[in-house]
Amino acid sequence: MNKNKELLFGVAYYFEYLPYDRIDQDIKMMQEAKINVVRIGESTWSTYEPQDGVFDFSKLIYTLNKMRDAKISVIVGTPTYAFPTWLARKFPEVLVENNGNRLPYGARQIMDITSPIYRYYSERIIRHMLQETVDYENIIGYQVDNETKHYGTSASHVQAGFVEEIKEKFSGDLDTFNKEFGLEYWSNRINTWEDFPNVNGTINGSLAGEFAKYQRSLVKEYLSWQVDLVNEYKKDFQFVTHNFDFEWRDYSYGIQPDVNHFEAAEPLDFVGIDVYHPSQSQLTGTENSFAGDVARSIKHQNYLVLETQAQAFKSWTPYPGQLYQLAFNHIANGANMIEYWHWHSIHNSFETYWKGLLSHDFEPNPVYEEAQKVGHDFERLSDKLVNLNHGADVAFVVDNESLTATSSDWIEFAIGKDVNYNDVFRRLYDTFYKLNVRTDILNPKTINLSDYALVVVPMLYVSDENFLKALNQYIHDGGNVLFTFKDGVTDEHVKVRTDIQPAIIREAIGAHYHMFVDPNGETLEDQTGIFEDTDLHISEWAELLESDGATILASYNNHWKKFGAITENKYGNGMAWYLGAWPSQSVTNALVKHVINQSGISQSDYDVTFPVIVKSAKNEYGANIDFLFNFSDTSTSLATPFSGMELIKQEHMAQGSQVTLQPWDVKIIERSNR
Amino acid sequence: MNKNKELLFGVAYYFEYLPYDRIDQDIKMMQEAKINVVRIGESTWSTYEPQDGVFDFSKLIYTLNKMRDAKISVIVGTPTYAFPTWLARKFPEVLVENNGNRLPYGARQIMDITSPIYRYYSERIIRHMLQETVDYENIIGYQVDNETKHYGTSASHVQAGFVEEIKEKFSGDLDTFNKEFGLEYWSNRINTWEDFPNVNGTINGSLAGEFAKYQRSLVKEYLSWQVDLVNEYKKDFQFVTHNFDFEWRDYSYGIQPDVNHFEAAEPLDFVGIDVYHPSQSQLTGTENSFAGDVARSIKHQNYLVLETQAQAFKSWTPYPGQLYQLAFNHIANGANMIEYWHWHSIHNSFETYWKGLLSHDFEPNPVYEEAQKVGHDFERLSDKLVNLNHGADVAFVVDNESLTATSSDWIEFAIGKDVNYNDVFRRLYDTFYKLNVRTDILNPKTINLSDYALVVVPMLYVSDENFLKALNQYIHDGGNVLFTFKDGVTDEHVKVRTDIQPAIIREAIGAHYHMFVDPNGETLEDQTGIFEDTDLHISEWAELLESDGATILASYNNHWKKFGAITENKYGNGMAWYLGAWPSQSVTNALVKHVINQSGISQSDYDVTFPVIVKSAKNEYGANIDFLFNFSDTSTSLATPFSGMELIKQEHMAQGSQVTLQPWDVKIIERSNR
Amino acid sequence: MNKNKELLFGVAYYFEYLPYDRIDQDIKMMQEAKINVVRIGESTWSTYEPQDGVFDFSKLIYTLNKMRDAKISVIVGTPTYAFPTWLARKFPEVLVENNGNRLPYGARQIMDITSPIYRYYSERIIRHMLQETVDYENIIGYQVDNETKHYGTSASHVQAGFVEEIKEKFSGDLDTFNKEFGLEYWSNRINTWEDFPNVNGTINGSLAGEFAKYQRSLVKEYLSWQVDLVNEYKKDFQFVTHNFDFEWRDYSYGIQPDVNHFEAAEPLDFVGIDVYHPSQSQLTGTENSFAGDVARSIKHQNYLVLETQAQAFKSWTPYPGQLYQLAFNHIANGANMIEYWHWHSIHNSFETYWKGLLSHDFEPNPVYEEAQKVGHDFERLSDKLVNLNHGADVAFVVDNESLTATSSDWIEFAIGKDVNYNDVFRRLYDTFYKLNVRTDILNPKTINLSDYALVVVPMLYVSDENFLKALNQYIHDGGNVLFTFKDGVTDEHVKVRTDIQPAIIREAIGAHYHMFVDPNGETLEDQTGIFEDTDLHISEWAELLESDGATILASYNNHWKKFGAITENKYGNGMAWYLGAWPSQSVTNALVKHVINQSGISQSDYDVTFPVIVKSAKNEYGANIDFLFNFSDTSTSLATPFSGMELIKQEHMAQGSQVTLQPWDVKIIERSNR
Repeated sequence: MNKNKELLFGVAYYFEYLPYDRIDQDIKMMQEAKINVVRIGESTWSTYEPQDGVFDFSKLIYTLNKMRDAKISVIVGTPTYAFPTWLARKFPEVLVENNGNRLPYGARQIMDITSPIYRYYSERIIRHMLQETVDYENIIGYQVDNETKHYGTSASHVQAGFVEEIKEKFSGDLDTFNKEFGLEYWSNRINTWEDFPNVNGTINGSLAGEFAKYQRSLVKEYLSWQVDLVNEYKKDFQFVTHNFDFEWRDYSYGIQPDVNHFEAAEPLDFVGIDVYHPSQSQLTGTENSFAGDVARSIKHQNYLVLETQAQAFKSWTPYPGQLYQLAFNHIANGANMIEYWHWHSIHNSFETYWKGLLSHDFEPNPVYEEAQKVGHDFERLSDKLVNLNHGADVAFVVDNESLTATSSDWIEFAIGKDVNYNDVFRRLYDTFYKLNVRTDILNPKTINLSDYALVVVPMLYVSDENFLKALNQYIHDGGNVLFTFKDGVTDEHVKVRTDIQPAIIREAIGAHYHMFVDPNGETLEDQTGIFEDTDLHISEWAELLESDGATILASYNNHWKKFGAITENKYGNGMAWYLGAWPSQSVTNALVKHVINQSGISQSDYDVTFPVIVKSAKNEYGANIDFLFNFSDTSTSLATPFSGMELIKQEHMAQGSQVTLQPWDVKIIERSNR
Repeated sequence: MNKNKELLFGVAYYFEYLPYDRIDQDIKMMQEAKINVVRIGESTWSTYEPQDGVFDFSKLIYTLNKMRDAKISVIVGTPTYAFPTWLARKFPEVLVENNGNRLPYGARQIMDITSPIYRYYSERIIRHMLQETVDYENIIGYQVDNETKHYGTSASHVQAGFVEEIKEKFSGDLDTFNKEFGLEYWSNRINTWEDFPNVNGTINGSLAGEFAKYQRSLVKEYLSWQVDLVNEYKKDFQFVTHNFDFEWRDYSYGIQPDVNHFEAAEPLDFVGIDVYHPSQSQLTGTENSFAGDVARSIKHQNYLVLETQAQAFKSWTPYPGQLYQLAFNHIANGANMIEYWHWHSIHNSFETYWKGLLSHDFEPNPVYEEAQKVGHDFERLSDKLVNLNHGADVAFVVDNESLTATSSDWIEFAIGKDVNYNDVFRRLYDTFYKLNVRTDILNPKTINLSDYALVVVPMLYVSDENFLKALNQYIHDGGNVLFTFKDGVTDEHVKVRTDIQPAIIREAIGAHYHMFVDPNGETLEDQTGIFEDTDLHISEWAELLESDGATILASYNNHWKKFGAITENKYGNGMAWYLGAWPSQSVTNALVKHVINQSGISQSDYDVTFPVIVKSAKNEYGANIDFLFNFSDTSTSLATPFSGMELIKQEHMAQGSQVTLQPWDVKIIERSNR
Repeated sequence: MNKNKELLFGVAYYFEYLPYDRIDQDIKMMQEAKINVVRIGESTWSTYEPQDGVFDFSKLIYTLNKMRDAKISVIVGTPTYAFPTWLARKFPEVLVENNGNRLPYGARQIMDITSPIYRYYSERIIRHMLQETVDYENIIGYQVDNETKHYGTSASHVQAGFVEEIKEKFSGDLDTFNKEFGLEYWSNRINTWEDFPNVNGTINGSLAGEFAKYQRSLVKEYLSWQVDLVNEYKKDFQFVTHNFDFEWRDYSYGIQPDVNHFEAAEPLDFVGIDVYHPSQSQLTGTENSFAGDVARSIKHQNYLVLETQAQAFKSWTPYPGQLYQLAFNHIANGANMIEYWHWHSIHNSFETYWKGLLSHDFEPNPVYEEAQKVGHDFERLSDKLVNLNHGADVAFVVDNESLTATSSDWIEFAIGKDVNYNDVFRRLYDTFYKLNVRTDILNPKTINLSDYALVVVPMLYVSDENFLKALNQYIHDGGNVLFTFKDGVTDEHVKVRTDIQPAIIREAIGAHYHMFVDPNGETLEDQTGIFEDTDLHISEWAELLESDGATILASYNNHWKKFGAITENKYGNGMAWYLGAWPSQSVTNALVKHVINQSGISQSDYDVTFPVIVKSAKNEYGANIDFLFNFSDTSTSLATPFSGMELIKQEHMAQGSQVTLQPWDVKIIERSNR
């Protein structure tokens, strides 16, 4: 169940939303675009169960039959992320209570995922849906729920569950709990379990961090419960997936704070993701890359893009060429499926202008026409491009707990809102990406450190000592780690360590600090020449580093000139770098290049950097496939280091010959075996 | 009842707010300023009914007697827009419930206008007030309530009324309703009428738009109810009016979203308006003009300015000359009355620094002294300037439903908050205004298209097919229409049409689009030379137009260069222009000039544009009256095309002689009969 | 009880927050820094009373014993500003209800200080704490509560108390009350006391101002109640203090709106303050100076700095030299104690990154090391620097009622949010400060006008006639007053006076205005030459002044050129200046210099201005002590006008010799008696 037979190219299809029945025309247009899969069913519970206990799957079945006849595969979604009006009327308590406020009915994702009533009704609709559909051989898989999060659920039963978990974790020992969570502060001490106040009002970062972790565990439990239900029915050839999404800053910006993807994905057969990104002149491919790295790394397996944009918003509608290159970009990142959200633009309600492949007029248009080209080339090249195998020498370690702990008011005192967890992650990720260095993304629980030549650890503010010691050992054994400020500061309960910082990892880093300050005009002083011709300004953060043996790569230049800002240390057989300040992009570039070189990591064989992006992989026949992308409005040429075949145009390339990339172009080169 | 005998010049007068009884001094100062009307009574219910059922109109009667003796006319306002403390205490439910929150007592306009309790107490105070006052012959009219809106009322009885209305509209047919409103989306389908959820939480734009329309109908019903009450008592020589206001963006910016003025004005004898506008160096006269055009067009009749600013805020206190020119500016727009808000500045509470003609010291001051000049000249020129008749060749079509539909989150996905309905309306309105082209402003229900040579239809996003077909027919018959982007997109239920856009009007426009994009750096390419020497940048919006026969006046220049942005089409005997992008002011100017010329509309006989504004009209004697305004700090001269008499200075002007306008000056020329 | 024996140098010490018992090491490090006092106990009620009626002061006693043994003095704080979880669980009504919302448990300062239940439990813990501690001879004083404010308390019993107070004040005369408060406006009239609406919703500035005053009186009553409790127990050698804080705009910006310091300090033995200020390149010393002037003026006595910053935030961590200079800066301002908040940085919860002298690692660091130098020099110089006597020729008159009245929406119509009360205060205060003119700060109730050669009255918008008449008399008798716009506008009930403004003080000022306007490009026209080479732009405010005899120092230059902006008037034997517009800093400088000169006030004997700040005082031996500070990154030299001894370096200075101030340096010169 972890191999696909072919590249999947699809759309979300909502027969229920159509203003009139035009399924035959739609299927004809899908076939003309070689669309071979649709996702259906996940949004329309109220259609399938118009009244409590009254089921009507006729529209779903009608669609399934039509798709079967057209030989289009189907992924069926359980319809639980948006629930019917009658359920809200009968049981208002299924509406999530978030910080004391019950949300009104109307939007999706407003349910309390922990509500027993919600579970009762969800289970019933899921069981009915599965019974009705599971025998369709064109159903290749099921999606459970949709972009599930906890929606801030914090009603009294959630609070009670949280207190029980803490009680169990501390074996009922209140003194230890108070001490570890620092509850003496501002008289927050809890002297009997009954006194435990509603955590919504807390100003204690340890408690808030623990509650956020508990809320994430509720998401995992909810998804596992749905997967178990589906598994009772589904056939062996059918998979279960879920569409994870990412921190949303008007697009998929970074690590998701509200779900631990690594844990929540455990019961799934395939990891699915929803990726939305800037487009037009702002298109870089970075979001596809980091989201794909997360998805691929979770199970070290190819993944499904369950949603990505077609026309979407006016500022995202792709320039000519972009839709085509992006489809292959997902494949290059490790996807086996690309599914647009969605087929047709919706004629009413909230997402009227989150447009699909088709506009509201259902007519062919430039975006649909480009999708036709994708479909034909996916079909033609599927055999060579499905189940690509991707290796990475570099891994990022990301962490939900560090993310949420550093996003709270109490820590923003220190770092400020302008540079938070995902900004630091993205700055470093983007730098590796643009240098064409392939990366995996894992968390402390799931990473096998010895798989990698270099590990990057951005702002791992919260960590138990085991992982930090493992990092020391990994370096000692020959590994390379790039650390950043705020790494290792607190224990697993967000209690700042009492050791001299960076505490446990200080051993490998070979430097320490007692204080940090705002740069306030301070700039870097290059100590070894690696930052020549860079912008030495820093902002937001400056730790005052003192060497215990490390080399100071950069120090400060004014009031704090006796302190270091960036260090490098040989520890055992490995190397540790520590970035103690928030530098310019050019200093970040120089540092990452230096780290890569010192770690013995080869960049792409193509001597290029962004806007030319290269992704290489091995296909099922063992052939090396190189994808070249031009993310710019300017055409560019490069000499190919290999002979091979350009697969899109089917042109043979001699070694050293010039490949020209038009604006927003993609080339796919299958290297000759030599 | 639709003719005035004289120009009215007045103030809102609040005897109840005076710190001491100085009515005799006030009247003396009014007489010295030739003030001939005051509006009283509309704010002080708690004074007239200090306790439930205890009435005391002594202050009102005292004022009425004093005014009668001074031969000053009076407009009495019903006092219902601000209610007494005892009523709030006894019946907290008269406080409006807005999105689930009951407003606290304190401000005005916080009542539920649909509350039967509020109606009961309002009716009683209105009946008592009318009985007490109606025999005063110096009462020339009544104002019902004050700047009435619906205040977001959405309590359960309002929700129930809304559901009943929908049920009736759809004859109880839920399937059709669900389909037309797109309620399958996100499982919002309503399968029994009992399930209808509180609309406050809705994310469905069709439902939200329908509810906004329902709320506007409540305003109309409330005003009609008050008018009916007043009509039971008032004498034939007394009129009923109401003071409508406009979208408020720190001043009267545009069309009012919460009231349909065209419907709500039906039972009134005279339309009244409240106009507030930027002043000092920001004074342009535009707000007086558009508000006046709305007021005049509703009944094709002269109107009353029930409130406009005297000193008001520190940033509005007029420069020397401005108060004088603005008084005649209102007359030039079609008003028969100018009433300042208000006589004296208030010594406590909220509007202490919304200053009147007098400051808190009640002393003469530069603004009062200028008002004296106005009053004397109004009296002197009343006979020639009252009941001016204004004709316009151009009409704007405005629409509340399009306004509210495009102001919602779900549509802002598409257009963005920076360019919304009233911005588009104002951009075009201001352009016509500054070119000195006279306009009417009507809505689809009230316009008689054949009255106009040119009709401008900004962003008529919501429209039934009848009006769109009527526009086609009007053009075919020889009419001219300037359309903009978003015209005709949805039906009357805010459901996007499934036709190729711009759907029904595509026939007349002769062009269509499947997609629209963010300009993102795209600029216009002039195709016919009419945009020479203009700024070709566009922003916010770009439809990708393809001609079905229309001439492309401007296309795009980069990724979308094969598509048009602005088109012109001969259809039958008329012309249709379509503006598919948001252009610069200079492109708008060029386009509007071109449209005017092609439509055979003559601009003013005076060959001038803003900052010199010309308004012409015919008086009751059939004489042509030309008002010339200089809205700038620089004096300017122009040759008069006619011989005539300048009425303010009583100077004869030979044809072709130079008229000099000082900074912030006005001249009024009565043309010689030739 | 108003003299100290020595300079106190201390920290807030929280044994309860320590991650492990390290009190012995802490005391050793304190001793090495010559720390001679700690403040303890004020935050940890839940530790001392873990359950209702169960007391456990063991940690407090342990700390007291250790400190006694180490000969470190102690200030004990009553622990009432943060209360235990069990109290919130048992009596949720102790949580303050602010504008209808009960705050959730979690933060500090969330109690209803008027709750009888809160008083009951607070009294019990205070009595127990006093009984346990009062016999410790190393306890030098008690602090009651912590930065107490009213937290917006407005629950029904508070409303009832407020109505009772008004009823009493107006002897039950509703008519007078309605008239004076302007309640006829918008029908807010109150016709029976039972109708009095909840003041939370009011839009009446008089009512809101009166309620704010009432809320401040609750703070005074609460603190007095605690002081009385402590006084029942404390020994004669022990003092009672409280730590007042200031308007918070991310630091101590200006006058505190929520507490009347002058009234609330009455029962205290010593005034204490908490001062936090910008640091690093933004350090100016201004906040220390104005806060110190308030504290010193209240009782014309030396004061205690109960909290000021050590490392604090990353943007406040002092540059080398700053911590040292700031310690002596407080002494120069009149403090006898400097206590850092706090000793060690906290390892969990809200203020983790409000760092102490020590970082989380408890290790020596640059800031701690600088504190060591402070401690040694405090000890060495204590005898010469304790109980310094400060005289000022200039006084500022500040006023809570004017502050709150001009911070409300209804007045912001007039002045705008960008220039409010504390901005005007700070602009003038900072100007005097930077010119090295010493000032006191008092309010209308506490100032003895005849003590001063010059009185500055910024924006005294609210004032009864007595004080205004006293100002007139003071000037007539030879005093000098610098008035500003908005002075004297309303009576004590925030009712604008009906006199020509500036009403009562117009007599002394010799000028009046009827109108004010927004400058909108208007600039000043210098009439007498004192504004040569200044920036004549104005913003925000321009009163149109007309002279009744005053000299116009500056007028306007455009539309309002016949009006004055700044005036000067000889009245009796004194002078009155009136600033009617909001000028540039350079015009402010020129005006203040002119006013100082005309008032015969000598600036510092050192001919310097900011960034060199001079503060002079007399010590207990009658010697003149001059403190010189360099608040800049650039070293500077000046000639000393006196011979004397520089106390820090113990260097003799001949008259006229050069003193060099390094960046962020301080020198202390004891003048030779001559």
